Amino acid sequence: MIYFDIEHKKDYNLLTMKKYKEMTKEELKKEYDSLNRRYRDVCKSGIHLDMSRGKPSIEQLDLSRGLLDTLYADADLNAEDGMDVRNYGGLLGIPEARRLMGDIMGGVPVEKVIACGNASLNIMYDCVSRAYSHGIMGNTPWHELKEVKFLCPVPGYDRHFKITEYFGIEMINIPMLEDGPDMDKVREYVEKDPDVKGIWCVPKYSNPEGTVYSDDVVRQFAALEPAAPDFRIFWDNAYCVHHLYEDSALQAEIPDIIAECEKAGHPDMVYEFCSTSKISFAGSGLAAIATSVANIEDIRKGFSVQTIGYDKVNQLRHVHYFKDIEGVKKKMMEHASILRPKFESVENALEEGLAGLDIGTWTKPKGGYFISFYSMDGCAKEIVRKCAVAGVKLTGAGATYPYGKDPRDRNIRIAPSFPTTDELKQATELFVLCVKLVSLEKTLESLG
Amino acid sequence: MIYFDIEHKKDYNLLTMKKYKEMTKEELKKEYDSLNRRYRDVCKSGIHLDMSRGKPSIEQLDLSRGLLDTLYADADLNAEDGMDVRNYGGLLGIPEARRLMGDIMGGVPVEKVIACGNASLNIMYDCVSRAYSHGIMGNTPWHELKEVKFLCPVPGYDRHFKITEYFGIEMINIPMLEDGPDMDKVREYVEKDPDVKGIWCVPKYSNPEGTVYSDDVVRQFAALEPAAPDFRIFWDNAYCVHHLYEDSALQAEIPDIIAECEKAGHPDMVYEFCSTSKISFAGSGLAAIATSVANIEDIRKGFSVQTIGYDKVNQLRHVHYFKDIEGVKKKMMEHASILRPKFESVENALEEGLAGLDIGTWTKPKGGYFISFYSMDGCAKEIVRKCAVAGVKLTGAGATYPYGKDPRDRNIRIAPSFPTTDELKQATELFVLCVKLVSLEKTLESLG
Repeated sequence: MIYFDIEHKKDYNLLTMKKYKEMTKEELKKEYDSLNRRYRDVCKSGIHLDMSRGKPSIEQLDLSRGLLDTLYADADLNAEDGMDVRNYGGLLGIPEARRLMGDIMGGVPVEKVIACGNASLNIMYDCVSRAYSHGIMGNTPWHELKEVKFLCPVPGYDRHFKITEYFGIEMINIPMLEDGPDMDKVREYVEKDPDVKGIWCVPKYSNPEGTVYSDDVVRQFAALEPAAPDFRIFWDNAYCVHHLYEDSALQAEIPDIIAECEKAGHPDMVYEFCSTSKISFAGSGLAAIATSVANIEDIRKGFSVQTIGYDKVNQLRHVHYFKDIEGVKKKMMEHASILRPKFESVENALEEGLAGLDIGTWTKPKGGYFISFYSMDGCAKEIVRKCAVAGVKLTGAGATYPYGKDPRDRNIRIAPSFPTTDELKQATELFVLCVKLVSLEKTLESLG
Repeated sequence: MIYFDIEHKKDYNLLTMKKYKEMTKEELKKEYDSLNRRYRDVCKSGIHLDMSRGKPSIEQLDLSRGLLDTLYADADLNAEDGMDVRNYGGLLGIPEARRLMGDIMGGVPVEKVIACGNASLNIMYDCVSRAYSHGIMGNTPWHELKEVKFLCPVPGYDRHFKITEYFGIEMINIPMLEDGPDMDKVREYVEKDPDVKGIWCVPKYSNPEGTVYSDDVVRQFAALEPAAPDFRIFWDNAYCVHHLYEDSALQAEIPDIIAECEKAGHPDMVYEFCSTSKISFAGSGLAAIATSVANIEDIRKGFSVQTIGYDKVNQLRHVHYFKDIEGVKKKMMEHASILRPKFESVENALEEGLAGLDIGTWTKPKGGYFISFYSMDGCAKEIVRKCAVAGVKLTGAGATYPYGKDPRDRNIRIAPSFPTTDELKQATELFVLCVKLVSLEKTLESLG
């Protein structure tokens, strides 16, 4: 494999720091040819990288190897309420796991938390599925309604959109602003249209923008007066403790949505989700849902038909390993020390390769798992395709929008977590190259 | 607590060995008064036992404590296909877990098995739920149909019936014969009525009868020509390796339904389920589904929306612990040595207390988790009530029938696994006492 990096730029006589729109057609063509030669070389170099998902790296997974040594054969296997964690029962999870998960979500009291299995996505799916087949709290099952709509702040998380798409729910794009979704639009839909039954939110270090909802936005959510009695905010607090920086001034905190909804007189309006997938092990952590006691009872009724209970041994294992929220926070700083250089490496390479060219912008998140890149309009699909041809698989362009349709074809989600720093450097260089190539093609095309 | 046992009988001058129908009214009354005095004493003795569910005992759970020491912190955490079991992905489970679960089901090839999470009930629920919301293999979703029916061999497993009841599916009772469900009735419904979409089966050591389907019955199942293209046999092989006796002549084996359905030209007609809930830990074992490759693909599509994958760490832990089917079989004999004396103790106490009275019959299973008791018609509810008043909670009478309605009010499921042998002795004595009391009440009532 040919190693390539910014030093090689000179070999290709790149003119990277002049804006394309200020170049003559001649200059553009020259630049394009030069970059394209380089691209062809890279294609031959045999890179093979998958950056499509926000997967923790092996180094991160190794941080929690100790979890495997936590519950040994002669451990006390009773939960604090005396239940044998190995046996059936305990639909809501063991109390100590409910407490830990509540604390991870910012201090939700134990009676408002259910500790579940290994995938918060699965709980979200179940909530939508149960609403579809049986309805929420005695309301009409969604499958009996002519139309059901969800609001989708965009760009957002593709797997959220897949769930609502799967159930034939109409998805409505809501623009993300700097401090969260456009709340005027949210209010307009939620308060006027009884078909609007939900909204997907990732309130902290959002996927893929890294946006943190402001206190004001969170309170505007809590103050919503929905037209539908079974409207629910699907508050996926996936990155609630997933800071990239140790400096507490750089660590985002948002108001507790459960408490805020209560205060605003809408205790049942929100389902909050979280998991330890990016704290312990991605595929075998704990997930949880937090909501009002009335919603918990509604969910428990469904659970009592659906399952014999979630894996309480793994719940106890996690509690023994992390002890409490301080243990979790400490572990998150270990994750941060692995993740932060990766984010910064991508950001630096983007800065170095693209700054001043006016052909792309990107986010610089303080937490979460993604960098969100915006190309010139109409370029994202082709950039992703070119990267794939050269051996780097990115999240499909469009995936961050409902139905996979990015109206301006310009958003690309970059997931820096899994590759090594070296791989990341290569991949970002290639990405920069592809952004330039496609932008040049687009610019040349517009010149005719 | 007053300890009571068969020795005490003399104190109460019991006349247990004369058939009630041969007694005079006088004799019946005398017997009743005597038994009732005893019952009142037992009520005061402070027994407190829950025999309502087929839960493994603590001693049984302790058999697999070693499972907790199996995957230690410096273990190789890659599956045999190279996948890191800690990370996301692997929707169908790791190959070695699929193989083990396939072997537990009698040698189903790995490509026809999905290794899942901790609850086979949850997979069954998901199969029904997905059929309801999305349909099976492109067929009309069940919620769009006027009527959907399931056949329910009775008595059967209450949690099966709860799932179909929850989805508003009409349940039709099918009598259980000595060698399985009444196949003439099954064929009649399945082959003539396209609304019949499924049948709940526990083919080996059935819940609660302990019935083993004969080879002929299994092959008649495979030969069904359903009127509905999306008819599926829900083959809950919950007790596939759950023998009570070491003697292989007493260990039931049934034909592999997956292979039989293939041979009969109906490869897609069956979903088979199993779990290690009663092999390793009841609440944190592995579950699996086995079915045709086409069904697997249909299910995988649903899974890809529903989850990020099941807990592969626990899958690997189980494979490392049991190694292979021989390891499982060995463990099952350890379970048997704990369970068998409990079953025999109940059977002996029933024999001792009730033989020759013509007021009850019961099964003597060679495997599984239950003894099924039949009282005189119209007595089961009252027997269960009387036991509960005295402190022993049994499975609700009627629970073994759809909608909780036992048409003759006579079946009671006895779950001997959880209590200690001493507790079991007490509980069975009380049970015998209640059976007698209620039978006497019924007999006196009929005399006017």
